[in-house]
Amino acid sequence: MGSTWGKNIKLSLFGESHGVGIGITIDGLPAGVKLDLDLIKFELQRRATGKNELTTARKEADTFEILSGYFNDYTTGAPLSILIRNRDQQSRDYNKIKDIARPAHADYTGYKRYDGYNDYRGGGHFSGRLTAPIVFAGAIAKQILRDKNIHIGTHIKSIKDLEDRDFCEEDLNKENFKKLSEKQLPFLDENLEDLSRKKILAAKNEQDSLGGIIECSIIGIEPGIGNPFFNSIESQLSGLMYSIPAVKGVEFGAGFKITDLFGSEANDDIYIDNDKVITQTNNNGGILGGITNGMPINFRVAIKPTPSISRPQKTIDMKNNTETEFKIIGRHDPCIVPRALVVVEAMAAIGILDFLVVS
Amino acid sequence: MGSTWGKNIKLSLFGESHGVGIGITIDGLPAGVKLDLDLIKFELQRRATGKNELTTARKEADTFEILSGYFNDYTTGAPLSILIRNRDQQSRDYNKIKDIARPAHADYTGYKRYDGYNDYRGGGHFSGRLTAPIVFAGAIAKQILRDKNIHIGTHIKSIKDLEDRDFCEEDLNKENFKKLSEKQLPFLDENLEDLSRKKILAAKNEQDSLGGIIECSIIGIEPGIGNPFFNSIESQLSGLMYSIPAVKGVEFGAGFKITDLFGSEANDDIYIDNDKVITQTNNNGGILGGITNGMPINFRVAIKPTPSISRPQKTIDMKNNTETEFKIIGRHDPCIVPRALVVVEAMAAIGILDFLVVS
Amino acid sequence: MGSTWGKNIKLSLFGESHGVGIGITIDGLPAGVKLDLDLIKFELQRRATGKNELTTARKEADTFEILSGYFNDYTTGAPLSILIRNRDQQSRDYNKIKDIARPAHADYTGYKRYDGYNDYRGGGHFSGRLTAPIVFAGAIAKQILRDKNIHIGTHIKSIKDLEDRDFCEEDLNKENFKKLSEKQLPFLDENLEDLSRKKILAAKNEQDSLGGIIECSIIGIEPGIGNPFFNSIESQLSGLMYSIPAVKGVEFGAGFKITDLFGSEANDDIYIDNDKVITQTNNNGGILGGITNGMPINFRVAIKPTPSISRPQKTIDMKNNTETEFKIIGRHDPCIVPRALVVVEAMAAIGILDFLVVS
Amino acid sequence: MGSTWGKNIKLSLFGESHGVGIGITIDGLPAGVKLDLDLIKFELQRRATGKNELTTARKEADTFEILSGYFNDYTTGAPLSILIRNRDQQSRDYNKIKDIARPAHADYTGYKRYDGYNDYRGGGHFSGRLTAPIVFAGAIAKQILRDKNIHIGTHIKSIKDLEDRDFCEEDLNKENFKKLSEKQLPFLDENLEDLSRKKILAAKNEQDSLGGIIECSIIGIEPGIGNPFFNSIESQLSGLMYSIPAVKGVEFGAGFKITDLFGSEANDDIYIDNDKVITQTNNNGGILGGITNGMPINFRVAIKPTPSISRPQKTIDMKNNTETEFKIIGRHDPCIVPRALVVVEAMAAIGILDFLVVS
Repeated sequence: MGSTWGKNIKLSLFGESHGVGIGITIDGLPAGVKLDLDLIKFELQRRATGKNELTTARKEADTFEILSGYFNDYTTGAPLSILIRNRDQQSRDYNKIKDIARPAHADYTGYKRYDGYNDYRGGGHFSGRLTAPIVFAGAIAKQILRDKNIHIGTHIKSIKDLEDRDFCEEDLNKENFKKLSEKQLPFLDENLEDLSRKKILAAKNEQDSLGGIIECSIIGIEPGIGNPFFNSIESQLSGLMYSIPAVKGVEFGAGFKITDLFGSEANDDIYIDNDKVITQTNNNGGILGGITNGMPINFRVAIKPTPSISRPQKTIDMKNNTETEFKIIGRHDPCIVPRALVVVEAMAAIGILDFLVVS
Repeated sequence: MGSTWGKNIKLSLFGESHGVGIGITIDGLPAGVKLDLDLIKFELQRRATGKNELTTARKEADTFEILSGYFNDYTTGAPLSILIRNRDQQSRDYNKIKDIARPAHADYTGYKRYDGYNDYRGGGHFSGRLTAPIVFAGAIAKQILRDKNIHIGTHIKSIKDLEDRDFCEEDLNKENFKKLSEKQLPFLDENLEDLSRKKILAAKNEQDSLGGIIECSIIGIEPGIGNPFFNSIESQLSGLMYSIPAVKGVEFGAGFKITDLFGSEANDDIYIDNDKVITQTNNNGGILGGITNGMPINFRVAIKPTPSISRPQKTIDMKNNTETEFKIIGRHDPCIVPRALVVVEAMAAIGILDFLVVS
Repeated sequence: MGSTWGKNIKLSLFGESHGVGIGITIDGLPAGVKLDLDLIKFELQRRATGKNELTTARKEADTFEILSGYFNDYTTGAPLSILIRNRDQQSRDYNKIKDIARPAHADYTGYKRYDGYNDYRGGGHFSGRLTAPIVFAGAIAKQILRDKNIHIGTHIKSIKDLEDRDFCEEDLNKENFKKLSEKQLPFLDENLEDLSRKKILAAKNEQDSLGGIIECSIIGIEPGIGNPFFNSIESQLSGLMYSIPAVKGVEFGAGFKITDLFGSEANDDIYIDNDKVITQTNNNGGILGGITNGMPINFRVAIKPTPSISRPQKTIDMKNNTETEFKIIGRHDPCIVPRALVVVEAMAAIGILDFLVVS
Repeated sequence: MGSTWGKNIKLSLFGESHGVGIGITIDGLPAGVKLDLDLIKFELQRRATGKNELTTARKEADTFEILSGYFNDYTTGAPLSILIRNRDQQSRDYNKIKDIARPAHADYTGYKRYDGYNDYRGGGHFSGRLTAPIVFAGAIAKQILRDKNIHIGTHIKSIKDLEDRDFCEEDLNKENFKKLSEKQLPFLDENLEDLSRKKILAAKNEQDSLGGIIECSIIGIEPGIGNPFFNSIESQLSGLMYSIPAVKGVEFGAGFKITDLFGSEANDDIYIDNDKVITQTNNNGGILGGITNGMPINFRVAIKPTPSISRPQKTIDMKNNTETEFKIIGRHDPCIVPRALVVVEAMAAIGILDFLVVS
């Protein structure tokens, strides 16, 4: 049930890490959109694996086949469905480990939820691999938003204790967003690129893993979009962010740090600049009462360290209900943050587009 | 559109701060629940105003009239609807200030969203007053969860820089939750009660306001509840938390701090204790892959400083599109955190109940 | 759960026949609509009881109190909620008959659905009285549609075997719809008014009841509205029609009789008339592939004879699980058709508006 | 938007008649169902084309590939997705006819709805071919219902004026449903098989087409399932029936004919038979107040004559907005009724299962 989403743009996600493949059906897209296939491929490549020492060695081309909803190079208005076949699943004997609950993975919770019938190979439907179809959908959403002059950008705010500065006004333009999207380790402070690479590789070397924080900004959105209460911009976006495996925190504007401020500091004073209503500060992240005020929508997402590590861990055999020790063997990312940036952008684009299209 | 919610338990919220009243319709409640009216009144009183120097002087008894769905002291299974009439609205001349956008309030965003037709008096439908019916719904949800041995508790994690310790295992039991719920300023470290009172009153004296962080824990929930992706426990709960006015951050388990840990530290090792599967740490806040693992669901919610302050603030006249300066006159809370605790619990109860009932 | 509806226009219905009252919350209405209170009252009076010998003697003024969403004579965009208090409930001793399942009523099914906790007095939440708030919502929807030049009309197609002719092109204009709406027994063939009155009164005299068929037409809708498959115009409208108590059949265009035609007769040939695309016949009732073609949307709704009759009927005592015989005492309509016309129009208006507004 | 459906069982339908293929994703199926692939294939074959002179000559094996949600022969609880590739599309030059609106087809309405971007080949996403994935989903739903002792059967109630008798009590058992499902032309009166075959072939010979009525019965369902108002059994089932292309009427129990009865005749008296509550007649089709009473759910569905006929028809060129005459060339069914039976059963099974599972 959790794999279907949406009011105007409806998503239906399917697939498993080691099954036939993965895919998505997107219902509610406007007709007549000429898909920017280069953008889609570029976005998919941003989350692709196997491309360097920072990512898992599993090589998936993520070649998608459009199954429907696309005709003569335009969306038709009918559901757009794609299939990405799995290629580089390793044929290890999963039978040996299928009853072992990998700590911080969904093995135990999936086992309980689905009475042991879930596909356990590589996390099955819980796999981070399922974010590839989401990036596909996000690329289309980004393209449609781009035509409305709305742009979405991210940078790495931190990898463990290595911390970048926050987005400031000068950073928030489409040219800079593009530049950041082309980097392997997009920090605003470029010195952090090399430092973070070394930090990640050191963790990898120690058979350990790292997490980090992603900052995202959505610019160009008109004031007056969203709703009070249950369908607030924050409710919609946080719900989508928490759909990304490994996310443990979502904050908007000044976020948790707003609690360190007095009201007189936290309140964003309002001005008029060239006939446009603006605020000097943006502690509310562009949203008041669940509705946009025209300022950039800023939020941060906490990504936990990759749960897959090769060190021995204490856990249980779920079938026999006994304690055991276990070492994950196989390919995994020492730090998922660089590949998660485009997923955060995709979810943001989908969430915003759902408020803007009518279907 | 944002005032309707739910899959199994459906909420429909209505009302304005200075209109006839506020209320809620709850569709999907099980039939045959004998309402614990004392619990409902107790919960409503926890968020009530006018009871002490820490809250706004507006006195609302929040007397509710049950309009439907309740017969011979039991829920009927039909929609349960209540009306709370407004009583202590002040009859100030709102005409003078109706075009002034109060900073950090939804005045400007509501004006744009509803083309200036929204009820501007006291924030209208955006008012925090709308959380009273949510507390009503939450009290019923808590009662039903209590019968399933699920309990929800909160404490103040911080008021500005005054910081309490985190919940630890010993804190997580229904007796302690009850004790905390009876306090005006529920800190685990009781020394903070007096310190925080002084801090809030000092801010009030300075015509300023404070924010803070609420920590919430849900105990007694079985493993295997929830869904991957879009309907994860975190997606559902964060969506509800962000429906509470003034919330700017939501994090689960170790939250943003999980990014400071190595994977080997962050992963919660799994053990068996008296035939029950447990984890030693709970950095994942009781949720993996969007599904409960049977550990307490822990999360924190950041509440921004009350936007209403009596200091002069820079803002605009929305009608004339001109800059102006403005001082909010009237009654307001110097810190909303103590009254928000029960709202957080209510939303948590509603969110969890929706996963557990069938309707 | 069944009392909440909608995608863009969300309805939440509440109340019982003999409780405090009945009402509805409408979320998603556009802001800035100056309500036509005369239209609302006119529509409510069309389904009102106690006004003549053809309806039940229960006298309900159906005076509504607007609780929210309405300010300075305009809708605000926030949920519009109303309460209609019950006044003329008879204080009969329901205890005597509460376990008797009235045939063709929802007594037994409600008893099973809600484990005997449902409010049994006068049908409780199942009562036809709940259609009053729907007529209220429908009147607003009609007003908004009227401004888009869309009009909805009905006539009585039949009362038992007394059959009117079908709508023809000349009947389909707003002036005629208005004229029909002002009649107590709106037949196209005016001779049937008196005949049907006599027929209904004869049935009443025999302590019996009658049903009939309502024909409805929606004119002025643009081509291209609706969706294929699950959200087709027919799916949406039939779902709403079957929400009206006592409806047992819904057919569009030629309906069941289309099966008597050859394809060459049934297919509606397409022409251009003054630059407008039209069909000569309208066997498809203005809908193809779930989407409007610009022709009038025509459909018919079968209303069963009022189940409440004063004759003795065989039934059961639900508590003791024993057979019994039973005579319904009290006030009831000998034929519900004349009062159901405005309910059908209301549901049609709501269903169409949901496709046309964005919220 | 119209291709996504459901509350507990969620369907996402995709594909076009002449594109890559068609398919469906089913989210919310219980885990641990061992699929009865023989049943699925049997059901697909019931709606298959090309098997005899009564159906279109297009030969589609409807071979499905399960893409996800199925592991080691059991459903996993994750979305079950299938793809059926198109094989026998004819490579006619659609360019010639793409602007011609075929009467009684969705060509014109789709053109308006999707601004001319819809895939026009063979009706695109509007094609009856899309019912194949629905039959797949229905077969799984039927299997799960079968394990709850709920069975669904259909017969042809009429082909044009050739009319079968109604289902009677003796017909309503799983053995008879099976027997009917194995027939090409399942009438209760077996004499009608040959007569109807001749009638259909005669129409085919005249380049014309026929419609008819399908009667469906759902047996074995407990009382107390369903909801009042918007989510009544009738609302849910009629919404699904009207999602089937070509359906123009849906009636429950006695349907439109109930309006010919007095209340004293129409009311179904209630009895107790072997401790089971039953009604003598079933004019209400097993549903009162939107909720099952334990009697068979009976309904009838009107299927219009196949719109594709080879006779010349008056229509328009949509691009040039000119009138024209047109002859449909190609393969089509002279009467869709025999192939629609299994689609009606599939929709019924899906609709009922959605009320019974929890996800």
